[in-house]
Amino acid sequence: MTYQLWYWPGIPGRGEFVRLALEAGGIAYTDKAREDGAEALMTDMAARRPEPFAPPYLVAGKQVIAQVADILLFLGKEHDLAPKGDKRLFVHQVQLTIADVVQEAHDTHHPVAVMAYYHDQKPEAARKAADFRNERIPKYLGWFERTLAHSKGDWIAGKRWSYADLSLFQLVEGLRYAFPQRMAAVAGDYPRLSALRDAVAALPELQDYFASDRRIAFNEDGIFRRYPELDGA
Amino acid sequence: MTYQLWYWPGIPGRGEFVRLALEAGGIAYTDKAREDGAEALMTDMAARRPEPFAPPYLVAGKQVIAQVADILLFLGKEHDLAPKGDKRLFVHQVQLTIADVVQEAHDTHHPVAVMAYYHDQKPEAARKAADFRNERIPKYLGWFERTLAHSKGDWIAGKRWSYADLSLFQLVEGLRYAFPQRMAAVAGDYPRLSALRDAVAALPELQDYFASDRRIAFNEDGIFRRYPELDGA
Repeated sequence: MTYQLWYWPGIPGRGEFVRLALEAGGIAYTDKAREDGAEALMTDMAARRPEPFAPPYLVAGKQVIAQVADILLFLGKEHDLAPKGDKRLFVHQVQLTIADVVQEAHDTHHPVAVMAYYHDQKPEAARKAADFRNERIPKYLGWFERTLAHSKGDWIAGKRWSYADLSLFQLVEGLRYAFPQRMAAVAGDYPRLSALRDAVAALPELQDYFASDRRIAFNEDGIFRRYPELDGA
Repeated sequence: MTYQLWYWPGIPGRGEFVRLALEAGGIAYTDKAREDGAEALMTDMAARRPEPFAPPYLVAGKQVIAQVADILLFLGKEHDLAPKGDKRLFVHQVQLTIADVVQEAHDTHHPVAVMAYYHDQKPEAARKAADFRNERIPKYLGWFERTLAHSKGDWIAGKRWSYADLSLFQLVEGLRYAFPQRMAAVAGDYPRLSALRDAVAALPELQDYFASDRRIAFNEDGIFRRYPELDGA
């Protein structure tokens, strides 16, 4: 079966966490909105019963799955991208924690009004971003680092990569894009996480993808945005 | 096996979503921090390897599960609190969407600084709460209502309640506590969701619990806080 992935075509955003799993797993999929556009996405989404709350969603035959972590739970099981047994729930727990920090990273530029522009909430964003840089980045990255220290391998749940490792890579990439000064200042505090980021970047399964135009660059419409005034060491 | 639930003892908070599932499922558990206090919780959490990122977490023998949605995924499978097959992922998707709106409800009183006091971020909170009341409550509750309309029963995934139905009850209760004027103004827009709330409130499985002191009332230390200045029709 070839899956359909539906996500906003112009940004990596939350869709990229799904895309990395599909690509690293060698799983056949069509990136529908990149082929047909954002309007096709909105039309398709509105016609689903029940409709997804928001993109991304994956169409697998008659099944429609939304929420990144839920999609990855499905792909992890179907395509062996996560360990079995107790560890499956642990990998999912890590993924849900990644989802939390991704949301907070988004909120640094949209802290008080989801549908308004960033430039209409800049004072609030400055305060939120300072809190995120100083308190939340160390709290989250420290937890990922300690969790890696307790793993029995170099990956988050042992000696084989899982979808959560791919997501950790994308998280680090996004944070480095959005907060280059801050991430440079704290880089030495998270050696295992940095090594994991490098290991995903070097995965043979992903080299074709990274070299292709299927991989979308970060930009100022996405979750991770480079606004220099929100960064600082 | 008697599970251990660990969560901050003075608030319903995120722990209540787990507690409702344990109670409605008739599952044996010990509410550890309510017996031993918040300090015991912090000591226990710090000693776990790997440690949970945050409460609540459930100890099931040697397994430690954190993140509300992950705990409920586990309980749903082990104790038949969710449908099997494709619908299991759907119920989980609904739960993840509940987690999103719970986080946004929390952010109405803590929009820019997670560890600071509400009264140190009141102007930002006023703006965030207005956005939440006017834009986000209709968006989320409208989605739950339409999803219920497409269910083949009165519950979110058919003719039997699942853990996500219990969580929807707690969400509605929390929103009614925190935003009584706004929720009264929109109540007529979500008849199926209101009926689901009433059906959970009337579940025979939960009557003993609701009458007991195990059920913690909402208060101004939790996620759902009644600050009149943040409400409005």
